[in-house]
Amino acid sequence: MPMKLTILGSSSALPTSERFPSAHVINAHERLYLIDCGEGTQMQLRRNKIRFGKINHIFISHLHGDHIFGLYGLLSTFSLMGRVTPIHLYAPENYSSILISHLNDFDIHLNYEIDFNPLSGKDPIQILDDKYITVASFPLDHRVPAFGFIFREKPYDRNIIKESIEKYKIPGVRIPAIKKGEDFFTSDGEVIRNEDITIPGKEPLSYAYCSDTRYFKRLAEFVRSVDLLYHEATFDSSMDELAMITGHSTTSDAARTADNAGAKALMIGHFSARYRDIKPLVAEARTIFPRTFAAIDGETYDLEVIDHW
Amino acid sequence: MPMKLTILGSSSALPTSERFPSAHVINAHERLYLIDCGEGTQMQLRRNKIRFGKINHIFISHLHGDHIFGLYGLLSTFSLMGRVTPIHLYAPENYSSILISHLNDFDIHLNYEIDFNPLSGKDPIQILDDKYITVASFPLDHRVPAFGFIFREKPYDRNIIKESIEKYKIPGVRIPAIKKGEDFFTSDGEVIRNEDITIPGKEPLSYAYCSDTRYFKRLAEFVRSVDLLYHEATFDSSMDELAMITGHSTTSDAARTADNAGAKALMIGHFSARYRDIKPLVAEARTIFPRTFAAIDGETYDLEVIDHW
Repeated sequence: MPMKLTILGSSSALPTSERFPSAHVINAHERLYLIDCGEGTQMQLRRNKIRFGKINHIFISHLHGDHIFGLYGLLSTFSLMGRVTPIHLYAPENYSSILISHLNDFDIHLNYEIDFNPLSGKDPIQILDDKYITVASFPLDHRVPAFGFIFREKPYDRNIIKESIEKYKIPGVRIPAIKKGEDFFTSDGEVIRNEDITIPGKEPLSYAYCSDTRYFKRLAEFVRSVDLLYHEATFDSSMDELAMITGHSTTSDAARTADNAGAKALMIGHFSARYRDIKPLVAEARTIFPRTFAAIDGETYDLEVIDHW
Repeated sequence: MPMKLTILGSSSALPTSERFPSAHVINAHERLYLIDCGEGTQMQLRRNKIRFGKINHIFISHLHGDHIFGLYGLLSTFSLMGRVTPIHLYAPENYSSILISHLNDFDIHLNYEIDFNPLSGKDPIQILDDKYITVASFPLDHRVPAFGFIFREKPYDRNIIKESIEKYKIPGVRIPAIKKGEDFFTSDGEVIRNEDITIPGKEPLSYAYCSDTRYFKRLAEFVRSVDLLYHEATFDSSMDELAMITGHSTTSDAARTADNAGAKALMIGHFSARYRDIKPLVAEARTIFPRTFAAIDGETYDLEVIDHW
């Protein structure tokens, strides 16, 4: 499984007995990336047997409690568990000073460094270039500065057609470059075009996280062709005025963005506590975007097999 | 049940899959008092079906995360649920400014007032005088200023011996005063002593909360004769040096204080995450103080029937 998503929390500001506040974990090639850190995230990590030590990157979408109140406890727990490797933290730019003052206020001394990466701006920006993935942030439209994130697997190598190795006597040392897309030159100086000796590699996977936000048209551009779009749907579609006032989306807003983006699948979450039954919300979204699913706390989703969900 | 205790969290700084960080709820005559508010307290309140609206008083022992990181979320949730009645908050004196800055930093606007009551000083102080109970705070000995709390039911009225009403022709209007302990004067001017016409009322119950603290002798005075003493026992008795350095207690420390205080029962908690099995800790404490029990998350204990635990 090159990329899978675990939902630790999918409620909005009011947690329920079944849903904790926002927190997602992306596992990309066994490296873990935590997105948002609502209250109770560390308990949910434990409950889902996710190894704390494998988390090196934490992405905070915005500075509202239901997306960040688990962070102090988690940072403190990392330290108590003996962590010494740095945490790379991505959060709205004004969080840096808030973080420092609150660690002081609560007498928290970390054994490790926090590498703080401020989020800002009106356009998508690549914020991480890792071995297997890249991550970009993009602005959302909420009551306070808020950012979405898109995780993309890096392109896979092309696969060499076995028979061509013998046919053109390709030496082993040349194979890595050919897999990356280079042509091959025979000893006679003949050019063998890459597409004649290789077939495309696996399609890289992608995942986008959009919470919290009002609907706006350009958002679909930011998440164009993503495999899985997680999009908040705090309200049902009848509540578009309240959504607008509070800076949130309805089911229809989420579905429209998924549709405009050409996403492969849509996962909705961040549900208002007023909805005990989520099925009608999913049904509403499906009238616009059929491949819609509801996030469920504690579930893990394999992005490679979205077709089979 | 005039007084019962629900444990929402009994871990120390590192929560486990079975134990959340510190939070206790005292139900005294159907009024709820929250003591400490570790991360996840609001989820534990929901899980235990405790009505948020019945909580009007919150007591914070000290400003370490595992005792307070659930407070912002809870205060915010109160507001989102439409609360307008004030919350009476009792916390170390320097918390007032921290609270305000933290609410601002995270864009939290409360619909209700917080009546802040600073804790300080080296002696017990009565901090609440309610209809059915009084609450006093007393200093603990930790790495930062920390306070314990003792909840005492107010004395019950004495019970009039039925036969004496007829015998001395006591008018109904005099009975409330007699129940409070006054003597009765007959129409002949004869003094009938209270103890001849009444028997003592029910014994008032009491509960003390001591977390986090090193052992110190005077603590037993502060919790003298309490019905139930909750006392942290972060470590087993072999780890007294680490306990001293970190400002915590061992099982033996807790049991000695219970014994010196003449407590009726001792509940230990705030266990280090290193102990998967708590039974040996209880067994250790029992060698000094036999009526020792371990706190269990999600359990409710009726203080009236401690004898039957």
